[in-house]
Amino acid sequence: MPRILAFDVFGTVVDWHGSISREVDAMALGVDGGEFALAWREGYKPAMERVMSGELGWTLIDDLHRMILDGLLRQFGIDALDEAQKKHLNKVWHRLDPWPDSVEGLRRLKTRFTICTLSNGNIGLLANMAKRAGLPWDCILSAEVFRAYKPHPATYLGVARVFDVAPQDVMLVAAHHDDLAAARACGLGTAYVERPLEFGAGRPKDVSPRPENDLHAASFTALADMLGC
Amino acid sequence: MPRILAFDVFGTVVDWHGSISREVDAMALGVDGGEFALAWREGYKPAMERVMSGELGWTLIDDLHRMILDGLLRQFGIDALDEAQKKHLNKVWHRLDPWPDSVEGLRRLKTRFTICTLSNGNIGLLANMAKRAGLPWDCILSAEVFRAYKPHPATYLGVARVFDVAPQDVMLVAAHHDDLAAARACGLGTAYVERPLEFGAGRPKDVSPRPENDLHAASFTALADMLGC
Repeated sequence: MPRILAFDVFGTVVDWHGSISREVDAMALGVDGGEFALAWREGYKPAMERVMSGELGWTLIDDLHRMILDGLLRQFGIDALDEAQKKHLNKVWHRLDPWPDSVEGLRRLKTRFTICTLSNGNIGLLANMAKRAGLPWDCILSAEVFRAYKPHPATYLGVARVFDVAPQDVMLVAAHHDDLAAARACGLGTAYVERPLEFGAGRPKDVSPRPENDLHAASFTALADMLGC
Repeated sequence: MPRILAFDVFGTVVDWHGSISREVDAMALGVDGGEFALAWREGYKPAMERVMSGELGWTLIDDLHRMILDGLLRQFGIDALDEAQKKHLNKVWHRLDPWPDSVEGLRRLKTRFTICTLSNGNIGLLANMAKRAGLPWDCILSAEVFRAYKPHPATYLGVARVFDVAPQDVMLVAAHHDDLAAARACGLGTAYVERPLEFGAGRPKDVSPRPENDLHAASFTALADMLGC
């Protein structure tokens, strides 16, 4: 049994695609919100790689999101937004809605485990998101604390170090097999959670089980059932 | 009105003297728990100064507490503890009890403000303490995040940076005038909270108001009253 459950956030706890789609569509900018959301998210890994390769100095996700956004606004031909509107839109990542089972599942899991984030999102983003959505974290851990982005081992091992436990006492919960594989390589336990709509209804995701994960759950409440909470 | 309330923890939120006294007395080591608590706490600032001067590399409070504890065990002539017992005793700082008004006051303040720690305690210590005591933080911020101990400006300004707000949007809540003075020098608001028993009933503390603080409250619930929560 793990002692600490560390959660990936974007896509695992919250629905970035649906939340951003809805907000962009509501702005009536003449673009498809779903396509805009996908394009924004596609810029995310390359941007973090520029930081981890040393091409960029340490940069928070809020600032990486803004760099990507500025490119997207040009690419999508959007020139109607002033600086205050761009700043507000960039912080849509602070306003992502949880999946329907997230809050109840976390509340149940919290009764038996220490629950924390392990996200590449910056601390302020994760704290604002949690306050708005009612995510009951015991602790917000972020790439910002470890000065490294997942899948760097410093992040997974950092959770164990913060709580002064062995890596096997920590379980990563994520909807992404690559994240879980990197955690496993560091000695952490792994729980895969199905989020078939992560990329929207138009792009169903393969959520079939893989034997290398310790647990496979359809939702956070199903995970709570499995872990006796 | 501030947007973020950042709380000093040791002495302000939790009663280190009473908690450590009780635990040391219960161990029946033949020493006075209150004297032991005071001596442990007295080693705290000099230990952090060794880090901030560069004499020691970056060191977490858990490790500084252990260095001080090892010296105290010799000084108080205690040789009955094995390594597991020493480790457990060192983590008494994770098991400090809140002052009677802390949990209710924080719950009320949380309805209107983002409430976070700003403590020299390490993240794991603060998270374990919060989980045990029911402290409902929106976010745990620590010297560990900023790699600097209070009163270094990087800590106070770090809170504003994390939440992407101006320094004047953050108010430090503390029972220590030196902490508040350092926060004020960085542009933060300040609220002093009376904790007359911080050093035990035998060493009453002067808690008289000082005009340079924005607010002066007898408790967290009184602070919540003042702030309309």
